[in-house]
Amino acid sequence: MPVLYHHPVSAGSRFIRLAIGEIGYDCEMLEELYWERRPDFLRLNPAGLPPVLVTENTYAICGPTVIAEYLDETHGVLKRDKRLMPEQPYARAESRRLVSWFLDKMDHDVTTPLVRERMLKPQMPITMGGGSPDSKILRAARANIRQHMKYLSWLAGTRPWLAGDKFTYADLAAASAVSVLDYLGEIEWANYPHAKEWYQRIKSRPAFRPLLADRVRALAPVAHYADLDF
Amino acid sequence: MPVLYHHPVSAGSRFIRLAIGEIGYDCEMLEELYWERRPDFLRLNPAGLPPVLVTENTYAICGPTVIAEYLDETHGVLKRDKRLMPEQPYARAESRRLVSWFLDKMDHDVTTPLVRERMLKPQMPITMGGGSPDSKILRAARANIRQHMKYLSWLAGTRPWLAGDKFTYADLAAASAVSVLDYLGEIEWANYPHAKEWYQRIKSRPAFRPLLADRVRALAPVAHYADLDF
Repeated sequence: MPVLYHHPVSAGSRFIRLAIGEIGYDCEMLEELYWERRPDFLRLNPAGLPPVLVTENTYAICGPTVIAEYLDETHGVLKRDKRLMPEQPYARAESRRLVSWFLDKMDHDVTTPLVRERMLKPQMPITMGGGSPDSKILRAARANIRQHMKYLSWLAGTRPWLAGDKFTYADLAAASAVSVLDYLGEIEWANYPHAKEWYQRIKSRPAFRPLLADRVRALAPVAHYADLDF
Repeated sequence: MPVLYHHPVSAGSRFIRLAIGEIGYDCEMLEELYWERRPDFLRLNPAGLPPVLVTENTYAICGPTVIAEYLDETHGVLKRDKRLMPEQPYARAESRRLVSWFLDKMDHDVTTPLVRERMLKPQMPITMGGGSPDSKILRAARANIRQHMKYLSWLAGTRPWLAGDKFTYADLAAASAVSVLDYLGEIEWANYPHAKEWYQRIKSRPAFRPLLADRVRALAPVAHYADLDF
């Protein structure tokens, strides 16, 4: 059976877990403490980051966008109306642009620094970069959240789904990033009603359930994290 | 006619210029000084970075990997043996992994910091972040070059082309990053004979010629930059 190496605080990992759930791909899930830089994991992905999908033929498919394209080409393409990748080239480009926006740009500006400072450093050994959070980094990332949430709310308010008329990978990518920040209680939902309505729709999908059950060691989620009507 | 907004020091822009040359896509090229954050350019790409391809129907396709997928779907797919994207899903995944490696990871670890410190800051106004290079950043980026060049040399020494038997987008992505660093004289070629032999093959392709004619204001390239037999 295929194996997905993932971690609950990695937005890219959550993105692939959601995609696997939506597509109905049969796969074992293994949590990887990627900061330990386990040699066997580095052999699978020299970049050292989850998600990595090891297929039945033992090929390692590395990184969220690469795995998403692979799943679409080998399984999603058969899903017709429920396919997560649009059919038309411009629509595909818009979905891919937003996947990169939420998993690369938002990750860099917001998600990765907040996760590292608030979730990882407290549970990592000092020798691997653990310690207490850096307040300057937290401040910068929190200023960036507001810009990203405004953009997300604008997209959600002007289109049925983020990339257009159809539910696509773009929605899963944004929901993955948002779900990590929401776990941390970093999103002031009252300021972003369109984004909130959109997130409520995604959160109630069956594929989302495993994410709502995620718990990170030594850091409980915000009270409304698993609440579908937050 | 389609328009590509690009900049000579952006590895992602060079990647798409190479792809356009290889595919034979007819396109106007416009240089974008992206750090000026021109409102019309930000409307095309809210991320504010080149490359951006504006198609004949005035759709904006944003970012190197998104444009590469678009060009493959609309033009490359007709090129048969000369297609830059492999046909088989695992081979496609390996090509995409390496495109991301060279344009995301290597960009983050090496290319972007070196370009910013050595090429952009000297020509940018102080108010936009201009000034003299930060020696600490230069030192860190130069340490990272060695790791990336070792990996590139290992790939070039064990496979006919970087992603396998065929010339793919992965080769263009690596060549784009390497060409920017080579302009700056940052690569000690004598240490990486396999990478050097591979780069010589790429550099002699007709699509590469426009890149060898690039000149950045106030910073001449290293002496061997345009030399095919360096």
